[in-house]
Amino acid sequence: MVNYPIKKKASTERVSTSANRGMNFELMINQTNDFYLNNDIAIIYKKPIPIQIVGVDYQRRSAAKITEAYYKLPSTTDYNGIYKGRYIDFEAKETKSKTSFPIKNIHEHQVIHLKRVKEHGAISFIIVYFSALGKIFLLETEYVVRFFERSKTGKKSITIEEFEEFAYLIKEGYTKPVDYLEIVEREFI
Amino acid sequence: MVNYPIKKKASTERVSTSANRGMNFELMINQTNDFYLNNDIAIIYKKPIPIQIVGVDYQRRSAAKITEAYYKLPSTTDYNGIYKGRYIDFEAKETKSKTSFPIKNIHEHQVIHLKRVKEHGAISFIIVYFSALGKIFLLETEYVVRFFERSKTGKKSITIEEFEEFAYLIKEGYTKPVDYLEIVEREFI
Repeated sequence: MVNYPIKKKASTERVSTSANRGMNFELMINQTNDFYLNNDIAIIYKKPIPIQIVGVDYQRRSAAKITEAYYKLPSTTDYNGIYKGRYIDFEAKETKSKTSFPIKNIHEHQVIHLKRVKEHGAISFIIVYFSALGKIFLLETEYVVRFFERSKTGKKSITIEEFEEFAYLIKEGYTKPVDYLEIVEREFI
Repeated sequence: MVNYPIKKKASTERVSTSANRGMNFELMINQTNDFYLNNDIAIIYKKPIPIQIVGVDYQRRSAAKITEAYYKLPSTTDYNGIYKGRYIDFEAKETKSKTSFPIKNIHEHQVIHLKRVKEHGAISFIIVYFSALGKIFLLETEYVVRFFERSKTGKKSITIEEFEEFAYLIKEGYTKPVDYLEIVEREFI
């Protein structure tokens, strides 16, 4: 068996600043998922980044070294798992804008995926972090699809006012920096 | 936005030989999942291989080239998704042995993961392909855990007789080379 080199998981790092605003958003979500996992609340993981491997060096017996690889477009969303028997599926994005979230940050096949799993009984949504405002929103797939369709002929972004109206504001916290399951529990279960 | 080079997905390839035995097992599962997806039966994907990226060359503007990366141990199983509102999670393995499947092919954290998601309401299992016998079995997590525990003090493998007794034989087919949802539908829904 190959001895894979194992890196210390970034998601196990803890942050002790007085706010989460400077924290990497992916890390915030991973830390939340770690909390859910460690407290047996939900089993939700980030999928690895899809890579096309072209060259591998097997010279060192202990660890194969990938020498040439490229990023691939993901077919699905970044996160999925299970909570109280329900399949959970979402994509998380960050924007520095204070006024709107550009739709092009979500790929069409991701919107299709969110819609598909919802039709099969999933709870699916996107989470958008307005880092300059310190606000995190959960927007249900129904609205993601609606705004995506609108972007084909009209406005190419979802305004902050639209998030305030159609999305749910996620509470920030220390142990659960992005406690999206609080919304899921309250609104979708 | 980066233009990721997109490779033609291996999973869309079709095989026209008179049997599936020479076919790569991962390809067989992916082809089955493609069938489920295209026929709106289930949304189940293989997760990308987890990679730790160390070096990236950004010289070519059109495509970042990863120049140094290593395989990481997966935290979870390879496949998950949704079928009829149920969260599905499994690991798939192949063995050339005609007599038994070595337990060491499944990592302990994968067994823990299968057990966890089952406790949260998932349908979880392993699929084992005895390529020399042309037989594919679905073994529920309950038995995976049992045989895994046994391997700590006793027998380090699951015998073919044990698969015949405790697992379900999966029918092979052309459009669905590994029709595991037929078992799921009949036994677990």
